[in-house]
Amino acid sequence: MARIDYYDDPDAPAANSLVPSANVIVTDNTGRILMIHRSDNDNWAVPGGAMDLGESMTDCAIRETREETGITCEITGLVGIYTDPRHLIHYTSDGETRQEFSIVFTARPLTGEPTPSSESRQVVWVDRDQLDGLTMDPSMRRRLDHFLTGTTTPHLG
Amino acid sequence: MARIDYYDDPDAPAANSLVPSANVIVTDNTGRILMIHRSDNDNWAVPGGAMDLGESMTDCAIRETREETGITCEITGLVGIYTDPRHLIHYTSDGETRQEFSIVFTARPLTGEPTPSSESRQVVWVDRDQLDGLTMDPSMRRRLDHFLTGTTTPHLG
Repeated sequence: MARIDYYDDPDAPAANSLVPSANVIVTDNTGRILMIHRSDNDNWAVPGGAMDLGESMTDCAIRETREETGITCEITGLVGIYTDPRHLIHYTSDGETRQEFSIVFTARPLTGEPTPSSESRQVVWVDRDQLDGLTMDPSMRRRLDHFLTGTTTPHLG
Repeated sequence: MARIDYYDDPDAPAANSLVPSANVIVTDNTGRILMIHRSDNDNWAVPGGAMDLGESMTDCAIRETREETGITCEITGLVGIYTDPRHLIHYTSDGETRQEFSIVFTARPLTGEPTPSSESRQVVWVDRDQLDGLTMDPSMRRRLDHFLTGTTTPHLG
């Protein structure tokens, strides 16, 4: 479904939903990052999605990565917690407006090959110096920047 | 409202709700921990509660601590993310069964004095060597143990 992201925008619709989600920054042994070209809004992103009942946040992170990229990964750490109420995600199909709620993990690949899905029209290992050239939601770029600056203290916001 | 906690229990009701919550381990400059004696289940706990739309997780952590203890605090770090699907919290009043979802922060007090509320019949600064003597939910004790063992890597589970 189509999504529109709003940032600190007085014209944004009010949040009516809070959906905990995970995002995963998977890096291979050459430091490349596993990225998807999203089907819903044409942006590049790291894999991720909403947590289901019956799974933990790390279960969710591993499942979403496998579904969207074909790669099974192992969680290795935490980049941060992103819950800024000024970032809203509106779904045009049903009027849902989610408030940002993403926990961003790091991971390493275990098995599998990059494989597109209905949610990811391309799945690519991207060199870090190529990230600037990809169209990306500002929140995604910020999370990658936090990862790349590599402090050991997770972002809590 | 009354709550019953289930752990890996085949007789537990199925989860029907996922409510992101914060818990806060506030320590004073002598190392004592801010604890509440809960009104709903007679256990001791650190302050915390569910996130509202319009606030961030850290906003929630600060607000709940203030409401339940009278202490305004500043967040200083992260103990971990606790989202074990085998831990279920059933509310007898309305049949809601939440799956555990708590982010546990560390904090230091800024202003205020321990003040009971409708959710906290007692609010006390507790010496660490007194924690073993308090009745506590197993999940709460585990989170405190993770804090007290003091690794710099947050729990991700």
